[in-house]
Amino acid sequence: MRIRRIKNIEEKMLAEYGHLIVSRPGDLQGRWKKHFDKEAVFLELGTGKGRFISRTAEVDRAILFVGIDREPEILFQAAKKANRAVPDNVKLIHFDGGRLDEIFAPGELDRLYLNFSDPWPKNRHAKRRLTAPSFLKTYRKLLKKEARIYLKTDNRDFFEYSLNQLLEEDWQVRKVRLNYMPEETSTDVMTEYEMRFRELGQPIYRLEAL
Amino acid sequence: MRIRRIKNIEEKMLAEYGHLIVSRPGDLQGRWKKHFDKEAVFLELGTGKGRFISRTAEVDRAILFVGIDREPEILFQAAKKANRAVPDNVKLIHFDGGRLDEIFAPGELDRLYLNFSDPWPKNRHAKRRLTAPSFLKTYRKLLKKEARIYLKTDNRDFFEYSLNQLLEEDWQVRKVRLNYMPEETSTDVMTEYEMRFRELGQPIYRLEAL
Repeated sequence: MRIRRIKNIEEKMLAEYGHLIVSRPGDLQGRWKKHFDKEAVFLELGTGKGRFISRTAEVDRAILFVGIDREPEILFQAAKKANRAVPDNVKLIHFDGGRLDEIFAPGELDRLYLNFSDPWPKNRHAKRRLTAPSFLKTYRKLLKKEARIYLKTDNRDFFEYSLNQLLEEDWQVRKVRLNYMPEETSTDVMTEYEMRFRELGQPIYRLEAL
Repeated sequence: MRIRRIKNIEEKMLAEYGHLIVSRPGDLQGRWKKHFDKEAVFLELGTGKGRFISRTAEVDRAILFVGIDREPEILFQAAKKANRAVPDNVKLIHFDGGRLDEIFAPGELDRLYLNFSDPWPKNRHAKRRLTAPSFLKTYRKLLKKEARIYLKTDNRDFFEYSLNQLLEEDWQVRKVRLNYMPEETSTDVMTEYEMRFRELGQPIYRLEAL
């Protein structure tokens, strides 16, 4: 998506939504649950405009939902949304997904959501895809045993790529859906993208991996 | 597909194409390779009109290609096609796929092709799908170690079902394609169905499993 840049975005975000933003996430490595007095940590990598995380967080207040995005302008919108819904269990981080292991300890994550990730369609950008082998290796380390990745996308090629990478890296893949209907799990909130693509009648792909 | 029934089809087929038809396949259990002096056995289950098997067999005459179909009228057409191409390494069997273990011994198969299998879309017919758990268990037994299933279909729901069943039954799934292009492997012959569906611009799904 095209991003309209905002001047001094970091400062503005902290001033307005300081309670939602974790500005030094590395300090919490290994003690996220304890620090926020929560039972589990669910991470959404590439949290976008935040509809998914703010709505999903309402379902279980005992779980800490961490949203990460590398675009501060988008995170700003997520913060606005989260702030409106007032969920005390949502925290947002402006951070590079490639360095996740600097902010979480091995086994610290209980679930990872990848919702409508940037497909990086060009082959020369394949390494940037959030399901490239280097990312999968990090997730494997940071997710606790039996914890799952929940992946949703409208992009067939990205889905195909992700599925094959997961299988080659020996993840157990489950519940593959090539035309996913959200009714299947009542707690599965639609993202902004998902609503738009469903209106266009395009299939949504989904899988779980552990 | 709608099948036009032919009177005395079994007799006609044997009379015209006796050299292609194996009428008592159970007799060859455990000695297919030896009997036909071939190096490997590739099975196509649901061989349809036979374009795939007769063309594929031409590529390597050292391999025995066995085509099975439960519809004799369709097999009759396959026989016509195979006869025209004169491949001595194609054998056709009129048999029920659910009883494969009566004609092959454990580890006797080197590859299994499932091309555009009947999707049996109704849930109450799920057991008839060629990737239902009972079939997968039989394939596991009859395929030798490291031997693969090659599955191709135009039917999204059947593909989704097959993929999930294979994963749940602990098959290693590889090379999943949600819009398969035949150029990838030059030896991959298109079936009659495939040509029709490609003309309609519909995606073809493909995977390998071992």
